[in-house]
Amino acid sequence: MDDYSNDIVLTGDRPTGPLHLGHYAGSLVNRLALQGNCRRQFILLADLQALTDNVGDPGRVARNVLEVALDYLAVGLDPARSPFVLQSGVSELAELTVHYLNLVTVARLERNPTVKAEIQQRGFARDIPAGFLCYPVSQAADITAFKATLVPVGDDQLPMIEQTNEIAMRINRLGGRDILPEAKALLSTTPRLPGIDGKAKASKSLDNAISLSASADEVTRAVQMMFTDPAHLRVSDPGQTDGNVVFAYLEAFDPDRASVAELAAHYRRGGLGDSVVKKRLNDVLQALLQPIRERRERYARDPAQVRRFVSEGTMLAREAAARTLDEVRRAFGLRSHERQVDVRQRFAVTW
Amino acid sequence: MDDYSNDIVLTGDRPTGPLHLGHYAGSLVNRLALQGNCRRQFILLADLQALTDNVGDPGRVARNVLEVALDYLAVGLDPARSPFVLQSGVSELAELTVHYLNLVTVARLERNPTVKAEIQQRGFARDIPAGFLCYPVSQAADITAFKATLVPVGDDQLPMIEQTNEIAMRINRLGGRDILPEAKALLSTTPRLPGIDGKAKASKSLDNAISLSASADEVTRAVQMMFTDPAHLRVSDPGQTDGNVVFAYLEAFDPDRASVAELAAHYRRGGLGDSVVKKRLNDVLQALLQPIRERRERYARDPAQVRRFVSEGTMLAREAAARTLDEVRRAFGLRSHERQVDVRQRFAVTW
Repeated sequence: MDDYSNDIVLTGDRPTGPLHLGHYAGSLVNRLALQGNCRRQFILLADLQALTDNVGDPGRVARNVLEVALDYLAVGLDPARSPFVLQSGVSELAELTVHYLNLVTVARLERNPTVKAEIQQRGFARDIPAGFLCYPVSQAADITAFKATLVPVGDDQLPMIEQTNEIAMRINRLGGRDILPEAKALLSTTPRLPGIDGKAKASKSLDNAISLSASADEVTRAVQMMFTDPAHLRVSDPGQTDGNVVFAYLEAFDPDRASVAELAAHYRRGGLGDSVVKKRLNDVLQALLQPIRERRERYARDPAQVRRFVSEGTMLAREAAARTLDEVRRAFGLRSHERQVDVRQRFAVTW
Repeated sequence: MDDYSNDIVLTGDRPTGPLHLGHYAGSLVNRLALQGNCRRQFILLADLQALTDNVGDPGRVARNVLEVALDYLAVGLDPARSPFVLQSGVSELAELTVHYLNLVTVARLERNPTVKAEIQQRGFARDIPAGFLCYPVSQAADITAFKATLVPVGDDQLPMIEQTNEIAMRINRLGGRDILPEAKALLSTTPRLPGIDGKAKASKSLDNAISLSASADEVTRAVQMMFTDPAHLRVSDPGQTDGNVVFAYLEAFDPDRASVAELAAHYRRGGLGDSVVKKRLNDVLQALLQPIRERRERYARDPAQVRRFVSEGTMLAREAAARTLDEVRRAFGLRSHERQVDVRQRFAVTW
């Protein structure tokens, strides 16, 4: 990994369900590596963003905040170095969003390929909620609030970074100085983990993912159900490893890469049964998930502590976001909110 | 005036320039009457709203906040009964806006006749700032934050009230109880005051308005320049009072209505010179504006006091808005921000 010791990283998840192995391979491993290798890594529990398409079921979002925080702790994310930030607790993000909305045209938002794609995928047509159209602006608020310079994303998220940097440039021009830094994307090189059923994506909603909190039995059952090569009927038959979920998972999680390559070659030649590779994968996943599960259970016994971690991370984030908001407000010719606080603790305002 | 003693009123101005006689006749008189006749009248200094189309000149908005507050005090608005609220100081409004954006579709916003009309008037086409499209939502945040039940508006603003009530109904349905009251429009019956040049509207930007802070000489000069009846060449000629600015102003400001009616009849018959009616109007306006000007000058000598009025009004408004925001947050399944404050004074967050 490159040296990111000067970078502020922003990453996060929509708390709509517990995290699974797809998240682990796709982003959590990356966050663990960044944790000791950047100035600070803010991890956003993006509950407001999750609400944009869960208005009918807000309870689901609220419940999953604790679950996702437990997943973070379980994999080894350290709230002291990677603060966990509850998005809805940082009111400065809403203020930044409202300010930025004046700097972006509706036409520009409608051209955003990520928004376009998601509109199509969700079948919204013109009846999209305004909050959804404005979502790139809210994401720009998240990124700039913490002055993040490095944002781990998939390549489908690049337009969001571009939109963020456009807004940052507008603010810097308005303020006449470099208030907001440029954000760079850190593109993931990990291929997307397939679902155990062979579908392109492992996802909670498709019920084809292995949760980080899965029990040993659940893991074993999931491995047994995994899609392999349907034409691989007898052990002696040559088998396909492409599109074979067991091999995709071995490649993602087995630390002994050389031995996985040998196994794959053997499987393709023929003479290697599914039960053997599944046994191996089961061992690998159990070894990976057992300490995660144990840490998770330990933290789950003290939910007040987990809540405290989130509260403390959120407060730290608010301090950073409040400083940024003040600079942005001044760029718009608005007075700082800061001075209020000295006057009256609670609802003090000056102008 | 009806009895509004149970109503909370929300009214206000975009602080883009000092107030003039058009504001006085169109809304300030009404506010003075409401001041003793409602539960509370919040007067919003809508600086954020003014910024939506003054991004290039934010200083103008900031400067005019003090000017407009001085105008309020000068006409007799009492900050103890009609708190002056600086919109940008109430961060809860931004949070409410962001939440409400999830409840309104883009198509619904585009159908809003006020937005449509203003888009046309300003020549924005598709390149409207997103903040402008979302402006009815931000106005709904203003109205509902204070649980306003009565909103003095022109009939062109009725769609805004309708949009607000739609959002309130959604919130009440989400929360399963009556969180936000229905807002009723209080339609102005005063005809719009024309510009001194005879244009339909007196406005600062057209430079055809008489400021509340105009000096005695400025008032006299403005009256002398006033558009009357261009065909009324000799005193003995019959004159038009329709479209005659001097008569429009006499009707708006002369307390002796019977005598204005006589004067108008005389003018239409012929035999009444412009100089006579202008002399009368000048006397009327001087009598109206002199005490206003004097009060304005007195308050202007102590700008710190005016700022304190605005700060105190804004704090009072934040208390109301924070209570509403908490209820709205709970409707979305989000934790209250309130409890934070007891834990840590400044950036405390709980969830």
